[in-house]
Amino acid sequence: MKTGRKSGGAVSLATIAEAANVSISTVSRIVNGQTHRASAQTAERVRQAIEELGYQPNQIGRALKQGKTRVVAMLTANLNNPVMSTIASATEAALRDIGYVMTLCDTHDREDLQDEYLQAMRAQAVQGYILVTNIRSPGLAEIVARKEPVVFACRRNPYKPGAFVGIDNLQAGAAAADYLWSHGCREPAVVFPANGSAVTEERVAGFCARMSALGVPASRITKAAAPGNFHLEVGYAAARTLPDGAPWPKGMLCVSDQIAYGVYRCARERNLRIPEDCLIVSIDGSELNSWIAPWLKSIQVPYRDFGLPIVEQLQTIWNGGEPGEVILPFSVD
Amino acid sequence: MKTGRKSGGAVSLATIAEAANVSISTVSRIVNGQTHRASAQTAERVRQAIEELGYQPNQIGRALKQGKTRVVAMLTANLNNPVMSTIASATEAALRDIGYVMTLCDTHDREDLQDEYLQAMRAQAVQGYILVTNIRSPGLAEIVARKEPVVFACRRNPYKPGAFVGIDNLQAGAAAADYLWSHGCREPAVVFPANGSAVTEERVAGFCARMSALGVPASRITKAAAPGNFHLEVGYAAARTLPDGAPWPKGMLCVSDQIAYGVYRCARERNLRIPEDCLIVSIDGSELNSWIAPWLKSIQVPYRDFGLPIVEQLQTIWNGGEPGEVILPFSVD
Repeated sequence: MKTGRKSGGAVSLATIAEAANVSISTVSRIVNGQTHRASAQTAERVRQAIEELGYQPNQIGRALKQGKTRVVAMLTANLNNPVMSTIASATEAALRDIGYVMTLCDTHDREDLQDEYLQAMRAQAVQGYILVTNIRSPGLAEIVARKEPVVFACRRNPYKPGAFVGIDNLQAGAAAADYLWSHGCREPAVVFPANGSAVTEERVAGFCARMSALGVPASRITKAAAPGNFHLEVGYAAARTLPDGAPWPKGMLCVSDQIAYGVYRCARERNLRIPEDCLIVSIDGSELNSWIAPWLKSIQVPYRDFGLPIVEQLQTIWNGGEPGEVILPFSVD
Repeated sequence: MKTGRKSGGAVSLATIAEAANVSISTVSRIVNGQTHRASAQTAERVRQAIEELGYQPNQIGRALKQGKTRVVAMLTANLNNPVMSTIASATEAALRDIGYVMTLCDTHDREDLQDEYLQAMRAQAVQGYILVTNIRSPGLAEIVARKEPVVFACRRNPYKPGAFVGIDNLQAGAAAADYLWSHGCREPAVVFPANGSAVTEERVAGFCARMSALGVPASRITKAAAPGNFHLEVGYAAARTLPDGAPWPKGMLCVSDQIAYGVYRCARERNLRIPEDCLIVSIDGSELNSWIAPWLKSIQVPYRDFGLPIVEQLQTIWNGGEPGEVILPFSVD
């Protein structure tokens, strides 16, 4: 195996093929992350040659010359939610760094749209899928069954364990309980969607369990829920189920920032002062809070940091590996 | 020409081709909006046959059978801005109604990323481009020169007049002046990005011209500007240029909601009450305002209604037409 660095000029796939004693198409496949058709030794030999020869692919440019761009599709439940657009933006940047572009589809948390987009993206021959939604649908079941590269963010694969980037929502709920407890709250409320995702369910469960451990029985926790997919409206409707005229609980967990915004609107209508009359804690930590929601204490989920591990999990899958879950830390400050 | 409606079963392209006395591929092209290779009479004959025979294409399904999906690319300047995600969401829905899917790219208002995405989307053979950004770039110049289907939203094509959906920003600025004037404000301020787009420049110009017409000379309008692309930070930095300790002007135009949010943060830090100490008017009308920015008077731009005219302009281009500008009405309430 030749290992001398070629002087001057760009290193081509042919040079690497020669050095690693394999065909150009084998090098091409491995450079493109398709290692499953090569033996581990061959792949290793090619990677070593790439490193030694200093091969620097112009990823997007090269893909274009091949007549196809390397595209990954992201499906989100609701693009109007700033959480989703933050994850989308971070992932797009991380993909761009490795020479991919990201296409973004808004499924509105609807099974039919999810399948329509999955089908359309498959026809585009995208190289992978990132789902920030986890509605069960025939199309998703099929993609999982075919072992196509899929990474889930925030919500887990509903069909089987696997690639996932998120936080520990039970612990985040518990942290909210600790925060309210440490501020003297002994009879809190919790506001959540009646038909929420596993994410919101876990936040509520973690909150109640920790409160119970702190000596606050479930009976002293006011639960306010409302149906719907849009958290602004859910928060508002849920808060309106609290008796009018009576004071609110002194502390409250809203399971998302948008739910807290909805609750805030109801509080204003009832002439309640936030946080003086009710200390509101939420979980998300949207950037906007520091600008226009100074009344809100929000536990920070590092959505901006989701991009890199999402892309690393895709790369693991492309390289034939089986990624596990990546649980990122949240912060209470 | 046969015109009898075929009884039972789906109407195929072949049936239409037979009825219109043309080849199947001609029908296919016309159904797909590529009318430029057929004569006007042929296109009309095919359209008539389609109407009479009741051909109902399953648009996405058909495209998939052809092995390609019909995709339109949207490039936005900054997906984290709720204005952009609202336009994206509305356009995605309007495209879906005609059997297209939309792919979304965040250019971060950067020339290099804009070109990278334009290049990548072209390699994907997208059927059209929607730009919610108008940075000049070699890639955009080329696409315009090649007469590819491009529609601009909010900001106009920097190279030549053409398809555009937006509002009259001069008039929106003037409406803000009228509002402040009618609330007794005679010495207003205006807050804007130092290096803003034509949109923000026109809003400022319209505001100052109307104030002048109302008898407020330019010298009595406080201008607060700051550089940057992110309006939250621009608003905050610009507001901080107002003398500390002195009262603020009684009324103020912020040229976007995000700028108003930034100004609001500065006002809080200076213990100013909004709107009591300073009546803030902005232009955008984001949905979020009614939830958490009740202190803001925002002129409503109908971003949710941008989707349909954007898609109609694309269809006009696909049919060989030359769409003009669509100026939608804003509302002050």
